[in-house]
Amino acid sequence: MRYRRLGHAGLRVSELSLGSWVTYHNQVDVNAAVEMLAAALDAGINFFDNAEAYAGGHSEEVMGQALKRLNKPRLHYVVSTKFFWGLDRQGDAVNRKDTLNRKYLMQAIDGSLQRFGLEHIDLVYCHRPDPHTPIEETVRAMSDMITQGKALYWGTSEWSAADIRAAWAIAERHHLHKPVMEQPQYHLFHRKKVEQEYARLYEDIGLGLTTWSPLASGLLTGKYKDGIPAGTRGAMETMGFLREQLTDAAKNAAVQQLGTIAAELGATTAQLAIAWVTKNPRVSTVITGASKPAQLQDNLGALAVADQLTPELMQRIDAIAQPLVSG
Amino acid sequence: MRYRRLGHAGLRVSELSLGSWVTYHNQVDVNAAVEMLAAALDAGINFFDNAEAYAGGHSEEVMGQALKRLNKPRLHYVVSTKFFWGLDRQGDAVNRKDTLNRKYLMQAIDGSLQRFGLEHIDLVYCHRPDPHTPIEETVRAMSDMITQGKALYWGTSEWSAADIRAAWAIAERHHLHKPVMEQPQYHLFHRKKVEQEYARLYEDIGLGLTTWSPLASGLLTGKYKDGIPAGTRGAMETMGFLREQLTDAAKNAAVQQLGTIAAELGATTAQLAIAWVTKNPRVSTVITGASKPAQLQDNLGALAVADQLTPELMQRIDAIAQPLVSG
Amino acid sequence: MRYRRLGHAGLRVSELSLGSWVTYHNQVDVNAAVEMLAAALDAGINFFDNAEAYAGGHSEEVMGQALKRLNKPRLHYVVSTKFFWGLDRQGDAVNRKDTLNRKYLMQAIDGSLQRFGLEHIDLVYCHRPDPHTPIEETVRAMSDMITQGKALYWGTSEWSAADIRAAWAIAERHHLHKPVMEQPQYHLFHRKKVEQEYARLYEDIGLGLTTWSPLASGLLTGKYKDGIPAGTRGAMETMGFLREQLTDAAKNAAVQQLGTIAAELGATTAQLAIAWVTKNPRVSTVITGASKPAQLQDNLGALAVADQLTPELMQRIDAIAQPLVSG
Amino acid sequence: MRYRRLGHAGLRVSELSLGSWVTYHNQVDVNAAVEMLAAALDAGINFFDNAEAYAGGHSEEVMGQALKRLNKPRLHYVVSTKFFWGLDRQGDAVNRKDTLNRKYLMQAIDGSLQRFGLEHIDLVYCHRPDPHTPIEETVRAMSDMITQGKALYWGTSEWSAADIRAAWAIAERHHLHKPVMEQPQYHLFHRKKVEQEYARLYEDIGLGLTTWSPLASGLLTGKYKDGIPAGTRGAMETMGFLREQLTDAAKNAAVQQLGTIAAELGATTAQLAIAWVTKNPRVSTVITGASKPAQLQDNLGALAVADQLTPELMQRIDAIAQPLVSG
Repeated sequence: MRYRRLGHAGLRVSELSLGSWVTYHNQVDVNAAVEMLAAALDAGINFFDNAEAYAGGHSEEVMGQALKRLNKPRLHYVVSTKFFWGLDRQGDAVNRKDTLNRKYLMQAIDGSLQRFGLEHIDLVYCHRPDPHTPIEETVRAMSDMITQGKALYWGTSEWSAADIRAAWAIAERHHLHKPVMEQPQYHLFHRKKVEQEYARLYEDIGLGLTTWSPLASGLLTGKYKDGIPAGTRGAMETMGFLREQLTDAAKNAAVQQLGTIAAELGATTAQLAIAWVTKNPRVSTVITGASKPAQLQDNLGALAVADQLTPELMQRIDAIAQPLVSG
Repeated sequence: MRYRRLGHAGLRVSELSLGSWVTYHNQVDVNAAVEMLAAALDAGINFFDNAEAYAGGHSEEVMGQALKRLNKPRLHYVVSTKFFWGLDRQGDAVNRKDTLNRKYLMQAIDGSLQRFGLEHIDLVYCHRPDPHTPIEETVRAMSDMITQGKALYWGTSEWSAADIRAAWAIAERHHLHKPVMEQPQYHLFHRKKVEQEYARLYEDIGLGLTTWSPLASGLLTGKYKDGIPAGTRGAMETMGFLREQLTDAAKNAAVQQLGTIAAELGATTAQLAIAWVTKNPRVSTVITGASKPAQLQDNLGALAVADQLTPELMQRIDAIAQPLVSG
Repeated sequence: MRYRRLGHAGLRVSELSLGSWVTYHNQVDVNAAVEMLAAALDAGINFFDNAEAYAGGHSEEVMGQALKRLNKPRLHYVVSTKFFWGLDRQGDAVNRKDTLNRKYLMQAIDGSLQRFGLEHIDLVYCHRPDPHTPIEETVRAMSDMITQGKALYWGTSEWSAADIRAAWAIAERHHLHKPVMEQPQYHLFHRKKVEQEYARLYEDIGLGLTTWSPLASGLLTGKYKDGIPAGTRGAMETMGFLREQLTDAAKNAAVQQLGTIAAELGATTAQLAIAWVTKNPRVSTVITGASKPAQLQDNLGALAVADQLTPELMQRIDAIAQPLVSG
Repeated sequence: MRYRRLGHAGLRVSELSLGSWVTYHNQVDVNAAVEMLAAALDAGINFFDNAEAYAGGHSEEVMGQALKRLNKPRLHYVVSTKFFWGLDRQGDAVNRKDTLNRKYLMQAIDGSLQRFGLEHIDLVYCHRPDPHTPIEETVRAMSDMITQGKALYWGTSEWSAADIRAAWAIAERHHLHKPVMEQPQYHLFHRKKVEQEYARLYEDIGLGLTTWSPLASGLLTGKYKDGIPAGTRGAMETMGFLREQLTDAAKNAAVQQLGTIAAELGATTAQLAIAWVTKNPRVSTVITGASKPAQLQDNLGALAVADQLTPELMQRIDAIAQPLVSG
């Protein structure tokens, strides 16, 4: 495994990391999580992504129990969580969801620590921007989590460049802990935030990226070329919002073409797509999903593929994907 | 229920909220409080106002026990308390009352947390200004409560605009938690602080308002038009200071006229008076009082009345009340 | 009892307060301390002065046990301690004494809290200046005690005006808790620090004064006019350093003259001397000593004497004492 | 024993101090450590140097147990530790070693406190510079250790002057605890950092020095003049990296010449070498090694030798060593 710094921060994360969205609790129980985390750690993966909202809090519980069973020294892994949507199990309350206000955030970190069974969480994120809370209020709450020893680093997910810079500037002015990373969607068809909007932030504030959805929710595996197969994420009831993009004809045709390049390298289309993300030096780690160890091994194959991606191949890939970039 | 931000802060409070002054412990025991809070929460009210001095500390105890029995997730409600007058039960001591000095404030928050049986209080107020303590001393103590995790937001009650701005500026300069809300008296006959004195603060520092006495201590219900009926607040021995204003002839005549407008809308005068307060967008929440569930339901009716208050009706109301504004 | 603010701070202290130097543990055991503190509290005295070094730590222990037995609400009394000389019982170590470095100060506050059996101490002082420790190091340590909730206010004792101002400026620049009071020697024959050196500090930084030795170690009682009587402080073995000034002929002659004025007012010379100190509005409280309740009552008589001190009498007193001022 | 301030800081350290590198756990068990520390404390030594990495954590454990058995008041000794290389016993992890990132540092201090069995460590060092972590991240973590009460002072070891100044400036700008000391190698043949590179730092930021290797790993004892004797540090398997410099012919010849001067003073060459280091007033303390009490007594003899080092003798020493300075 290779490691990169989280932007300018001193923390080192593996180029590939493991997410828990959709999978934990839904597809993966504690036993399976133990198996997956053990395999990932063996392969050198050291970052495990999570969020309060994944599986309504169960994802944190499953991961926490699995980590406890693995009993690795705490320095061996980096765990994240993210705050914004709140927990459905707490019922409907106006300060419970869709917010980054102090009341929500201060109880959210305590809840996550309890569900994980950890004394601190390495990375905490604002899962989405909240236009209805002053950035200063959010920055103070996130920084306070670090001061209180409940978290080590904080960042954002899917924020605008302007809001990230505002958060950084407020922290600098008031001597608070600054945001160090952003978690954007980033794959062959979704590139604008990472490549254009954030362009100045990498040097100016040392922003690191932990990117999600390298396979465009599965589209880049090629498995949706003939519609939505049973048993896939696209077929899950709660994932209906993904169906249209997963069955986009032009994109599926492009995926077929990318498959040809992948085949030339003895790789799968998915491996090619993941490898492509790692080629961007601004990316600190690519969060990949896997519900079975075999899938994890498959993803890991992307690292070798990345070594084969010459400038010429990168150009061929770009020629196929660039015209279809939609975000 | 509709919700508003607490000024520029991200916290959301219900347009109507429930106070405990006079009522708790005096008129409302724990059983009754449970019933009232349950009804309020059911109606979407999420802010419950309190103060150290209400019923000599018993109001916090009653509310705390009632909240414990209701056992709602903490995110569902916002609780306040206020510090200034101290607790008579602690005996007579020169640093026990009429002060906002550090010694008083630091023990006051600990006392309130204990009486409430809560781990933190959402909103803490300086109940009155203290001209004998430097604002910086008070700002540091209030901000320290937040840093220590004992409170989430702090504000003032019945402070001058100049003192609020001074507190905000000290916090900004020394990187402390800033005041975010003020609790002023505000009703048809008492309007100057909210409408004139604080005018610049709403935009400049994002001040939120949690207003008290929407019914002018009951005057705006119309029940004092023929003097002080037995069993009313005005008849309580400790409320003698209210009697003169409650029996003011001109104001009672105006209340009669307002009653005519209310009747046109199928509403009570009290509902009209509460509705009028909610029409001011600077008001975050109107703190209402109620000693029985029926009164609470009555108050809630004000929300529908507010929807009926056209600019024309607002002008008619103003024409009646404006000449009698005395604060 | 009358009360004054501690300089510009909001804390209120009684005009007369009670010290424990020399007396506690040496002349006063826990039972006697309970009696004295009860009498003092009854008389409205709310400030009890102490120091780590008094009676080698025993003075804090005796006062702590007495306060515990009295079981008064914490708001009723203000307790101080002071750090500089360390505790002999800890043996000889180079960082144990004559220092205000961080190592010493951080253990000193913890030791005092333990000896007192209190959760916080109201006022903590740097007992003397330490030219061998940077003022910033001392300011940070004192401020940290307050941030950690172990103390409420901090100040200095017998520091130069320049050092006090430097400490204040460092705290202002780094947003730390500022020093609010100084404890200087102040009596009819020792006036320069209070009246000249600190002159600008009262307005500029709001410095409060808790003055010690209003009777010049007993000289101003008149009891040393014929030498050192047995049983007096001047006769104590450890107080040899006081003997020369206690038997100064010119000063004892002046004390006789002051006694004449006192007699005119039906007061003792000691009462006159204490009353004179309270006439300076820059003095927040005069720390008096007493080993028996009768002495305490005597001291309290000074308050009535102060009311009788007309400008004319003040001039007569000054004419006698001013020429002999030696500090 | 004589004592010096740690640079401008108020902390006082003995001119000679005792290190634990190589010796503890390897050559010295708990019983021997008790004997050595007792002898050192008796001689007035008050600073005991340690590091997380020494003997893989065992050095901290041995020293902690020995200190516990000695049961001296905490003010009597100053203990250090240093962070950078991590603990091999925690296995191989990318954030476990060769780093000064927040994740590593925050767990390192907790681990050291546990191994020592202490509530705080007096001096904590960044054991080496980490070019892959922003200095601000490291400064915040080190300062946070102090704010949390886990450490009293922080510093660096073998950092460049530029990096030390950067760390100091970041702390000043953000109002954090500043670095106060640096631990460089310093002996007759290794002088550039202390004498040239840091020259401006002594006055500008008050840097103190706790220097290591006064005997150049034993070279300056003269025992390597005929090669590597069995049983010496140079013969230890893990110390192979030292052999070349230990057997340098020119340096060993110079050591012989220094031995002549030492003999004139009735001293050993080692005593002369240690004495020479203490002559530099920028040095706060010279960390010496000893695996037996006799060695410790030998080292202590250097203090008397230092008193004999006249300017003339210092010139003679310089004439011998200066041409061979290699660092």
